Amino acid sequence: MSLVVIGTVAFDAIETPFGKTDKIIGGSATYAGLSASYFYDKVKIVAVVGDDFPQTDIADFNSHGIDTEGLRVKKGEKSFFWSGKYHNDMNSRDTLVTDLNVLADFDPIVPESYQDCEYLMLGNLSPQVQQTVIKRLKNRPKLIVMDTMNFWMNIALDELLETLKLIDVLTINDEEARQLTGEYSLVKAARKILTMGPKYLIIKKGEHGALLFDEHTVFATPAMPLAEVFDPTGAGDTFAGGFIGYLAKAGTISFNNMKNGLIYGSALASFCVERFGPEKIKNLTEEEINERVQQFVALSKFEI
Amino acid sequence: MSLVVIGTVAFDAIETPFGKTDKIIGGSATYAGLSASYFYDKVKIVAVVGDDFPQTDIADFNSHGIDTEGLRVKKGEKSFFWSGKYHNDMNSRDTLVTDLNVLADFDPIVPESYQDCEYLMLGNLSPQVQQTVIKRLKNRPKLIVMDTMNFWMNIALDELLETLKLIDVLTINDEEARQLTGEYSLVKAARKILTMGPKYLIIKKGEHGALLFDEHTVFATPAMPLAEVFDPTGAGDTFAGGFIGYLAKAGTISFNNMKNGLIYGSALASFCVERFGPEKIKNLTEEEINERVQQFVALSKFEI
Repeated sequence: MSLVVIGTVAFDAIETPFGKTDKIIGGSATYAGLSASYFYDKVKIVAVVGDDFPQTDIADFNSHGIDTEGLRVKKGEKSFFWSGKYHNDMNSRDTLVTDLNVLADFDPIVPESYQDCEYLMLGNLSPQVQQTVIKRLKNRPKLIVMDTMNFWMNIALDELLETLKLIDVLTINDEEARQLTGEYSLVKAARKILTMGPKYLIIKKGEHGALLFDEHTVFATPAMPLAEVFDPTGAGDTFAGGFIGYLAKAGTISFNNMKNGLIYGSALASFCVERFGPEKIKNLTEEEINERVQQFVALSKFEI
Repeated sequence: MSLVVIGTVAFDAIETPFGKTDKIIGGSATYAGLSASYFYDKVKIVAVVGDDFPQTDIADFNSHGIDTEGLRVKKGEKSFFWSGKYHNDMNSRDTLVTDLNVLADFDPIVPESYQDCEYLMLGNLSPQVQQTVIKRLKNRPKLIVMDTMNFWMNIALDELLETLKLIDVLTINDEEARQLTGEYSLVKAARKILTMGPKYLIIKKGEHGALLFDEHTVFATPAMPLAEVFDPTGAGDTFAGGFIGYLAKAGTISFNNMKNGLIYGSALASFCVERFGPEKIKNLTEEEINERVQQFVALSKFEI
């Protein structure tokens, strides 16, 4: 039994009001995979990089217990590269460079050893590629969580809607939920999205936390109020990875377990934004995570 | 012992994407007073209106057990009138008309019978007038809660900073907290505001809920996700009135009681936005309020 994460493994160059980085590693599968690895010890990734991608970073994945058999290294090609600059509010950003490179014709490999996949995390990537992975798994996983973004709504809406029919949980941000449905009210947007395929919807609201919907219920978690948000890159992927990692560990799909998954995902995301790139989430201890989760309990708990 | 609410009692004309109203009653003391009256039976208001203000609306206050001895009716003058139009997002609005009328030279009367004030709610109004009320009370109330807005930061910052030194709890929205401190991070903004006088700070975030800070602790409550937000006018005042009303009923000032006050205030505010003006919060039952509070419990509760 395993948790398979598909997404990008890539280079990012990030500028925030606090500083800038050279090329550092990033990508949705990087953040989600690392985050999930704190909860579940059978995390396997599917992604593609060029031969410019450092072996040390692949070794880093392995040292977190992440299986990289599905991480294809394409000789003579370059890894996906994204560069962006965040505005002062840290919620909006300009994309400076997008070099697709190996991602242009990414044909995801699902190794035979991944066919034990019970939990599938479809990190942000073309919905066509996300769908291909589902189809290459012989057995339908117990839980499929999908992250996506406005970019795919703009250029591949039909494929996105098709893929939505195949999944269990969708994670998107509030603006994307509005764009996908044409509804300003998140409650109305959620109702519409829950008729498109997913049985559960998570709306990510950045510094305002997240909402979890099923057909009958809604749960809200705040984000941890932080003095410094250093770099929001990867926070959504980290959140999703923590969420599905927690569920894989719990072993049972229920709304209550999903609520806890939201808290654990939020805790991991709150670490992520404290440093540039995945630096902070590469080196967490169980104690740090539990302490942060207890801070979430203190932040939200009241007795009425 | 009593809860004194000072603020505006006025006319509003409101336009939202859902419709528009003629002149209806509004004002910070109207919303806060009505809201507080559901929790505490000794609510007294200080405000000023012109003789154009309907006796039936004053009778409405009285039927909620609200003492209107401090509501001055100025003969031959007109009540404060505000008219505004909300944008589609319901978070931003344009002010179309502001006729100060009686408010231009408002000299608040504190009747002798109000000198038993234990809980003082300074609704949104000139900080100079807010301060005058504090000074006209012979005994310092047990708890002074103050609401204000960016308008006063722009035109009366010195008076606002002076008044802040005299109060216990400040309620402002996130943008106002940023403006008052020059800090984008709400945690840093809160730290600065807590050195300006208040021992507690509530940051209102509209559809994203509210944060309560003291020197050491932070508590977050979500807002109730609603399918329709009909008219946000008065939601902040309703929240503040419910908050202080709950505390007056509880009788003890503690962080835990304040947390519950946030929930009760949020519940009342969630009713307020369901109809135009104060229509909905004029006619609530205890059952409706308790049911909404239980929805907040369900919305926020998790077991880790």
